[in-house]
Amino acid sequence: MQPVILGDIMSSNRTNLIRLFVAAPLEADVPIDLPSEQAHYLANVMRKKAGDEALAFNGEDGEWLIRLDEIGKKRAQATPVERTRKQTTGPDLHLLFAPLKRARIDYLAQKATEMGAALLQPVVTRRTQAERVKTSRLLANAVEAAEQCNLLFVPTVEEPAKLETVLTRWSRERQILFCDEALPGADVPAPADFLRNLPDGVKQAPWAILIGPEGGFDPAERKMLEAMPNAHPVALGPRIMRADTAVVAAMALWQSVLGDWR
Amino acid sequence: MQPVILGDIMSSNRTNLIRLFVAAPLEADVPIDLPSEQAHYLANVMRKKAGDEALAFNGEDGEWLIRLDEIGKKRAQATPVERTRKQTTGPDLHLLFAPLKRARIDYLAQKATEMGAALLQPVVTRRTQAERVKTSRLLANAVEAAEQCNLLFVPTVEEPAKLETVLTRWSRERQILFCDEALPGADVPAPADFLRNLPDGVKQAPWAILIGPEGGFDPAERKMLEAMPNAHPVALGPRIMRADTAVVAAMALWQSVLGDWR
Repeated sequence: MQPVILGDIMSSNRTNLIRLFVAAPLEADVPIDLPSEQAHYLANVMRKKAGDEALAFNGEDGEWLIRLDEIGKKRAQATPVERTRKQTTGPDLHLLFAPLKRARIDYLAQKATEMGAALLQPVVTRRTQAERVKTSRLLANAVEAAEQCNLLFVPTVEEPAKLETVLTRWSRERQILFCDEALPGADVPAPADFLRNLPDGVKQAPWAILIGPEGGFDPAERKMLEAMPNAHPVALGPRIMRADTAVVAAMALWQSVLGDWR
Repeated sequence: MQPVILGDIMSSNRTNLIRLFVAAPLEADVPIDLPSEQAHYLANVMRKKAGDEALAFNGEDGEWLIRLDEIGKKRAQATPVERTRKQTTGPDLHLLFAPLKRARIDYLAQKATEMGAALLQPVVTRRTQAERVKTSRLLANAVEAAEQCNLLFVPTVEEPAKLETVLTRWSRERQILFCDEALPGADVPAPADFLRNLPDGVKQAPWAILIGPEGGFDPAERKMLEAMPNAHPVALGPRIMRADTAVVAAMALWQSVLGDWR
């Protein structure tokens, strides 16, 4: 485990630098264009000028110190000066979740990013109170969390799909941690022990966490999951949690037993 | 582990009953008074009338089906009819956290309640961006979470105090899970293994989780914690999390290794 050391960041001169997630490749002395929203943010919100510095990351080339060359209303240009951190990635963990109302889904996207999700897949279940999901908004929240929390990657955000469609297409290899609030109490193993006692091949496979809607899973959905040999139902303790709480809790459980908190 | 079974609740007739946290003792046929906010909520928001039913809990006497006898503008009266669930409590886990801005501290109080905290203690650290903490608001958020998530108890909410004062008065017995973002990476054990390998006496003691402010702990605070034999520093993985995310993540870790998720 190699924690990013907040103390070091705090005590360096780079504490106060703005961090930007960019689409362009980052390479020394090869200028990059920044889109209008970032130009606006730099110029009007943060009052930055040509010659000021910032940090940039794109999920592939590590983090770079960049020099702002030009800041206009519609666009800005910057030049990568020096790589400040090597690229790292998180574990291969996907998150499947039923859409929630606005503030909660924003929060969910931020928190799942901080917890190291590689991919966010909204799944429409039978009991989902179907609101439309704006994936652009999910992505914006994920980007904001990555920029603020000093992360080096942003999860991929998929378009919403029906849970049944997603499961029908599911690869044999990827395991599913199926967080089921309706599991009968008596014969349920503790979730951390359950994960620890899985065969090595299963533990080392790519994984996904599935968190249901606030109304729970439909019997047909549960049946479909039970029939999948790579879906592992667990109960997250004796209390009911809201779905956005369960996302963070399940990810912490997974990261501490199978992920990069080990 | 005895999970509350959401499926059973969903399929019973009691799904749609309002749940109220009350101050009064709950005993069959002994009427209780409800305060004006609950009277207002029942009458004006939920359009309830005398004769309607609800559920009530007080953290001591389990959950009761109550019959609303009288609903006025200023007060309401109800009579406990039948106990629907026995009282349960969570583990003896306190949460110490630095105050956060409004939406995040609301969220923190809700989430900590869902995760089973017995007590919430706001601690003012040297780097806390000291906003005033409204404990009444923290409690209101905790009550709302308990009412909505079918919980049977609400954490005690303490008045804010300086971290140093809290630590000076600390009992020898209660262990502290000190979630320190500035821990050096190389020689830090994985947090779940660390907790699992503690001596039994330590594992079974009462515990508290300490989550610092977004700016991290001050060196003097860290020194004070390091000098306490019952404070156990751990790093929550390689990524930086916001403080409200870290609260849920640390509680999930603790619950799954030492608490009631086992």
